[in-house]
Amino acid sequence: MRRFVIGQAKNLVDQTRRRHKNLTFLSHLPHPPPPPPFSAPSAYSSSSRFLSSSSSSSDMSSSDSSSSLPVTLDTINPKVLKCEYAVRGEIVNIAQKLQDDLKINKDAYPFDEIIYCNIGNPQSLGQQPITFFREVLALCSHTALLDESATHGLFSSDSIERAWKILDQIPGKATGAYSHSQGIKGLRDAVAAGIEARDGFPADPNDIFMTDGASPGVHMMMQLLITSEKDGILCPIPQYPLYSASIALHGGTLVPYYLDEASGWGLEISELKKQLEDARSKGITVRALAVINPGNPTGQVLAEENQRDIVNFCKQEGLVLLADEVYQENVYVPDKKFHSFKKVARSMGYGEKDLALVSFQSISKGYHGECGKRGGYMEVTGFTSDVREQIYKVASVNLCSNIGGQILASLIMSPPKPGDDSYESYIAEKDGILSSLAKRAKTLEEALNKLEGVTCNRAEGAMYLFPCLNLSKKAIAAAEAEKTAPDNYYCKRLLKATGIVVVPGSGFRQVPGTWHFRCTILPQEDKIPAIVDRLTAFHKSFMDEFRD
Amino acid sequence: MRRFVIGQAKNLVDQTRRRHKNLTFLSHLPHPPPPPPFSAPSAYSSSSRFLSSSSSSSDMSSSDSSSSLPVTLDTINPKVLKCEYAVRGEIVNIAQKLQDDLKINKDAYPFDEIIYCNIGNPQSLGQQPITFFREVLALCSHTALLDESATHGLFSSDSIERAWKILDQIPGKATGAYSHSQGIKGLRDAVAAGIEARDGFPADPNDIFMTDGASPGVHMMMQLLITSEKDGILCPIPQYPLYSASIALHGGTLVPYYLDEASGWGLEISELKKQLEDARSKGITVRALAVINPGNPTGQVLAEENQRDIVNFCKQEGLVLLADEVYQENVYVPDKKFHSFKKVARSMGYGEKDLALVSFQSISKGYHGECGKRGGYMEVTGFTSDVREQIYKVASVNLCSNIGGQILASLIMSPPKPGDDSYESYIAEKDGILSSLAKRAKTLEEALNKLEGVTCNRAEGAMYLFPCLNLSKKAIAAAEAEKTAPDNYYCKRLLKATGIVVVPGSGFRQVPGTWHFRCTILPQEDKIPAIVDRLTAFHKSFMDEFRD
Repeated sequence: MRRFVIGQAKNLVDQTRRRHKNLTFLSHLPHPPPPPPFSAPSAYSSSSRFLSSSSSSSDMSSSDSSSSLPVTLDTINPKVLKCEYAVRGEIVNIAQKLQDDLKINKDAYPFDEIIYCNIGNPQSLGQQPITFFREVLALCSHTALLDESATHGLFSSDSIERAWKILDQIPGKATGAYSHSQGIKGLRDAVAAGIEARDGFPADPNDIFMTDGASPGVHMMMQLLITSEKDGILCPIPQYPLYSASIALHGGTLVPYYLDEASGWGLEISELKKQLEDARSKGITVRALAVINPGNPTGQVLAEENQRDIVNFCKQEGLVLLADEVYQENVYVPDKKFHSFKKVARSMGYGEKDLALVSFQSISKGYHGECGKRGGYMEVTGFTSDVREQIYKVASVNLCSNIGGQILASLIMSPPKPGDDSYESYIAEKDGILSSLAKRAKTLEEALNKLEGVTCNRAEGAMYLFPCLNLSKKAIAAAEAEKTAPDNYYCKRLLKATGIVVVPGSGFRQVPGTWHFRCTILPQEDKIPAIVDRLTAFHKSFMDEFRD
Repeated sequence: MRRFVIGQAKNLVDQTRRRHKNLTFLSHLPHPPPPPPFSAPSAYSSSSRFLSSSSSSSDMSSSDSSSSLPVTLDTINPKVLKCEYAVRGEIVNIAQKLQDDLKINKDAYPFDEIIYCNIGNPQSLGQQPITFFREVLALCSHTALLDESATHGLFSSDSIERAWKILDQIPGKATGAYSHSQGIKGLRDAVAAGIEARDGFPADPNDIFMTDGASPGVHMMMQLLITSEKDGILCPIPQYPLYSASIALHGGTLVPYYLDEASGWGLEISELKKQLEDARSKGITVRALAVINPGNPTGQVLAEENQRDIVNFCKQEGLVLLADEVYQENVYVPDKKFHSFKKVARSMGYGEKDLALVSFQSISKGYHGECGKRGGYMEVTGFTSDVREQIYKVASVNLCSNIGGQILASLIMSPPKPGDDSYESYIAEKDGILSSLAKRAKTLEEALNKLEGVTCNRAEGAMYLFPCLNLSKKAIAAAEAEKTAPDNYYCKRLLKATGIVVVPGSGFRQVPGTWHFRCTILPQEDKIPAIVDRLTAFHKSFMDEFRD
């Protein structure tokens, strides 16, 4: 019966959207603690449509009575309508508006600046790039520099050597040419060597597909695996909304498995089995299991034992293991260590013919945080050669990923070594960033746990905290009156009171009836005390305002 | 009856593919001159699956008996199987194999090198990048250079100024941060100003979506407009296969309209109307008209009068006009001029509320040819604000296009001006490239027209020639015996005899029973005589071998 009500609610939401109306807060939905197999989180997800964003053309935003235009919400692909991406949703649109207001009148609000804690975008908050990486990139961008003697005074000697090495690997030294569809072979060699050094198991450069960040790789795999809504992908809840968005865009079914908040966002095999069986009983063919390790938004780092169980589960159930390992460098606690799923599988004796495994890596995360450069790769193992050729074909349609991103992907997997000119400064920059991130994670976690009605697991890794908000009935009713989810309401109020931008938990999905938000640990250290003060003061007044 | 046979043939092809077998050459298909409404070009399209490409993992390529692996050709998304992209298909895979062989044994074949004329990739064939663009890119890649006095000796003063200007437009000067989902606002301002200067009509930076090349923009619009095979997109035949690939991947129907080879690849409104009506009579909702101007692979430049008729057609029929204008700088004949569709529409009095028009631009083409940098934009006009917000949302899921590509997109739309330090060298580089391309186009066109049984329209613009091959029955029978299309057979033989890589016309679709190939005009001038000699000698011996 419950499931039926939720199904009805979901249909209602979809219909409501199609009619261009604001979402109705479905107050009759029950909020019991145990997670249902298919919850209706989209009923609470924030929509970017409430606010006419800066992307709207000036002469169109006033009215939609442009009846002569051929494209309407009713005629576009409904999969696009269904897709949600709260990390850049309503709250961020409001923040951009407030920022514009502050430019005009710096006293418009009770804060001086907007602090974007919504997205893992380190350099936007002042993190400096790794010097060696940028030196190599500049030399490869303007290769004429390599012929100038003055260059030796401006660049480290190993960056010059590396730039030459990279150029020698590119046919005609042409960094402005399309590369092989999988990326420049020499750069894939460097990536494969880096994987081997990390794992202690062989890696094949022909398994590497260079991508513009991890997201296009995830989309490519979803495109390959999903034919219809009968194809399901097991995804963690809470999840990074790229997964729900990509599954929606490709018309598949997200099969949720719930991480256990009480055990530090534990991933239980019994839960995987339960959800898999439940999905199968509904006629869904589950094609893959997505695992994010370290977790986003949840920040946990999986234990190796747990990873072995996950590998066995995929092997037994015939699932592709989609391993989102973009935070592999971001581990902050001494009792946890990152192990790649490939290393775990190979150490169990599973080879190329035993397990279909795709590992995603990105230059946007780690200590480097080169988000804007859009680079990354996926390592594709355990697919038959004819299926691999299909992946290659799809990669070919898009020609290649950008060469700057490809170069950076090779550099993060083969950074300076002891003895290199840059080595000491590189290590100092890297360690400085990672130890500061660990400190910030700890400070923010402690501050959050001091707030009334807030509990927050530690960030073992990644770049986020995902505290649980225990909200009063009065606060929930206030949200309901504004036709929005309680955590969305809280986050909006937080933004308007403090300028701090976080993402409501409903944007990541969560156990129904629980409320969270995701906050990055990325503001620079000197800003953290003020953020803690503002957050603490806001939270206290919010709790006081809505005390039952 | 004919249509029925073709339909049957197409089904047969699809089934054959699903069974992992090589395509059967359907010899019973008639080859009459007039184009059918829905031809079966895929029966002849080259497949990348014949050759185990370098992307295959070594331990998988020997056998596909990996029965324990979960993903097979039978279980992947059939839309992926259906998609074809001949520009990097079978012929290119063979070429890569030959190139590898030549590395091991330089006497392996009767030629020293592979000459890639398959793809519009100028810098891979020796075209040098524009110095000013690369200077700015290097300075923005490694901003510490801007603080060094030695930099002034290495860079032009306007590149330093421009780099500062760009950095000032990026919040925190962080070129390593994700930007606004549509791209950095200041760079979009520069693009909009460039469009205004080009067209003489206003352009709004909020209409600009920066993209990683034009391809992702085309995919985004297909994703928006296509829900099922009942949604059709009118595409020119011959067409750049990105369109057929993207429509296949999104599950829509390509509604072909045939360009008239006899009138220099003319685009006739009567043909558009005929094909539109025919598609509608089959229950297909035609959503958009794709026009490539200058043409790819056909090289024609549309007359303004013709463009006005196209605009009126879209307006009357309620079609989105998808204007692929990536070759707008590549016009080589004095009697033709590029006019953007937006300029044409605005000059007719059609504004934002009258016509849905998307213009695609790329940094990969023009005189700059920065393919590997993956940059471009689409200018989206004539959509309601709620639909625009959906486009924005989909752009947000991918976070942003790469910043290097964004910077280059702003530079090609706002290059150095008279009086700037770089202006004279910039103009010399630009004019040198464009006049050389014009010369190469003319030389190759004349050489092709001298070949027996070959006719070739002039390349008025773009980067390609698309000659028609009049092949003998004996040659066609030889292709049939090898289970391949006659033009594919010709191109393979050409490659193996000369090392010259071109793309068979069947990869672009063509009037059934006609055979073509696409050859770029991009090899450097000093290579052209040898290419002409080798092509001429090969063609003569091919014609002699297969004389009826």
